[in-house]
Amino acid sequence: MTEKDTVRFGILGCATIARKLARAITLTPNATISAIGSRSISKAAKFAVENSLPASVRIYGSYDEVVEDSGVDAVYIPLPTSLHVRWAVAAANKKKHVLVEKPAALDVAELDLILEACEANGVQFMDGCMWLHHPRTSNMKHLLDLSNSDGIGPVQFIHSTSTMPTTQEFLENNIRVKPELDALGALGDLAWYCIGASLWAKGYKLPTTVTALPDVTRNMAGVILSITTSLQWDQPNQTVANIHCSFHSHTSMDLSISGSNGSMHLKDFIIPYKETSASFDFTFGAKFVDLHIGWNVRPEEVHVVNKLPQEALMVQEFAMLVASIRDSGSQPSIKWPEISRKTQLVVDAVKKSLELGCKPVSL
Amino acid sequence: MTEKDTVRFGILGCATIARKLARAITLTPNATISAIGSRSISKAAKFAVENSLPASVRIYGSYDEVVEDSGVDAVYIPLPTSLHVRWAVAAANKKKHVLVEKPAALDVAELDLILEACEANGVQFMDGCMWLHHPRTSNMKHLLDLSNSDGIGPVQFIHSTSTMPTTQEFLENNIRVKPELDALGALGDLAWYCIGASLWAKGYKLPTTVTALPDVTRNMAGVILSITTSLQWDQPNQTVANIHCSFHSHTSMDLSISGSNGSMHLKDFIIPYKETSASFDFTFGAKFVDLHIGWNVRPEEVHVVNKLPQEALMVQEFAMLVASIRDSGSQPSIKWPEISRKTQLVVDAVKKSLELGCKPVSL
Repeated sequence: MTEKDTVRFGILGCATIARKLARAITLTPNATISAIGSRSISKAAKFAVENSLPASVRIYGSYDEVVEDSGVDAVYIPLPTSLHVRWAVAAANKKKHVLVEKPAALDVAELDLILEACEANGVQFMDGCMWLHHPRTSNMKHLLDLSNSDGIGPVQFIHSTSTMPTTQEFLENNIRVKPELDALGALGDLAWYCIGASLWAKGYKLPTTVTALPDVTRNMAGVILSITTSLQWDQPNQTVANIHCSFHSHTSMDLSISGSNGSMHLKDFIIPYKETSASFDFTFGAKFVDLHIGWNVRPEEVHVVNKLPQEALMVQEFAMLVASIRDSGSQPSIKWPEISRKTQLVVDAVKKSLELGCKPVSL
Repeated sequence: MTEKDTVRFGILGCATIARKLARAITLTPNATISAIGSRSISKAAKFAVENSLPASVRIYGSYDEVVEDSGVDAVYIPLPTSLHVRWAVAAANKKKHVLVEKPAALDVAELDLILEACEANGVQFMDGCMWLHHPRTSNMKHLLDLSNSDGIGPVQFIHSTSTMPTTQEFLENNIRVKPELDALGALGDLAWYCIGASLWAKGYKLPTTVTALPDVTRNMAGVILSITTSLQWDQPNQTVANIHCSFHSHTSMDLSISGSNGSMHLKDFIIPYKETSASFDFTFGAKFVDLHIGWNVRPEEVHVVNKLPQEALMVQEFAMLVASIRDSGSQPSIKWPEISRKTQLVVDAVKKSLELGCKPVSL
């Protein structure tokens, strides 16, 4: 990797997730950290020390200075969701490519402002959904391919959860449940993954209807702490996805996908149990044996090894697209903005269904 | 086991499931088959031969004769659901104890006729939900016990499926989708298990509300082929159970239960993969490691060995109750009728929610 191929990142803010991404950028051959900005320069300096960033990294006491830095190709934005539109648009307008944490925006209107700014400035957009970049995901995708006669066949049912136990302190004061910072709460922070996984399993076809279930819980400020929702596709075959996300429940990241001929299950789809390998269960052509006293097959555990962690693979993919635009005049990939926008449309529909007293919302 | 302790079964009908139960009764030390009746004596005789029943078994060309047989203590009723009320009541009125296949009845009004007849005649009632009798189930129950500090804590979320792929021929002509035989279709045949498992996980507390989702499919005759439903409990803590059942999808029997502190997962809860041992996954106190690059724990696989298959354990439990009533003047256990009745109440609520256009139904 020559310096020419390397994409120079500026990081906006010192959120916990920024530590993970700083490490990922460092691990990625075609990416480097050039600048870190915080509202306080001492916080930025502390972040640089704590994360062993090289002395060459420029330390700023504002986000503006990162966005203005001509030695920065791309920004990573781990700021609270309410700040995404302001800083993603500002970055795009300064020709910086934009990697933004999920949820991409508070709603599709805000996301469209970001995507329009990125398009107008010819810069790449991607949201920080890491699991899509794990080789396990491609492996599973192969089993969803309808032309694969060993695959699961047309998808009929999807089950996905993202839950984590939290404290009373978290439920009242964490950024992720503050109405002025992350007004979507669990719907943005957690359901983004499950909705995204359901869309992924359906080849990014939007559902016909989205229904929120009445078991939603909120904190005193009205921010969603737990939510259950069901997505339904009518064509080309009927599919239903049931999603449950919660800050009340034990850690879970389940994804089960059933087709006509087989099914896939994994319990760690968002963050794999281990960093360097992952697995999923696959069952094909299961039938009961005679007298229904057992099954003819048990699930097979499919193992996948990954040299780089999934967050580094995400940075690598993003940096490759950025380098290609910067160095070869390529157009930004529309794949990633489209994935984010469809996910955001479904998030909006869940919110609308809640507002309508859990009535089904058509898309 | 002396002859005195042995409970003598009469079987009504030669359904496929009757073959499994005939084997189970034969395997069970305190049970024996005394009679088999079919609408055609030759079918009954054929069943006796094919299932290697001893020559002493009385072969009848009617169900009436089984019910009248003074050498029969208990009947097993694997008939289509629409016939349950007639034959269960007839059997109870002849002082026969009643083991009936699930779904117990078409609705709670019919089930109440059966339960009232059983109560009036002092006979035991049980439905044929076998998985409740597997030692794995007791093992899992221990982890649901709130007094167990190593358990999963208050249940927050339940996911359960029962799906099987079928043929076009099945979807049009099988008993299980014929309006005059099994009018509940997948809601009776499959969701009985998932609703029962959700109630079991909640200590048989009825849900506050039941909501059917709009993705229901039906055959030409209007019988349900696939259904998704969500049960919600408000007290003492909020819990939601998402259930999906289908005759369109690959074989699945998933049960996941998440509490505040841990979770349990199994993919074969209704019929274990193997007959003589089973397992489930249990995760306790899962957290992400530093930088969210993995988990602190992976699920532990808990193995359980069973000497008798679960259907024989069911027969054993039922026969023990029957012998105790017959020989020691005990009262019938109210546990099993109550489990069936609560399950049936939720089935009724799902049907009502469907009739109301998927509105939540309070219980």
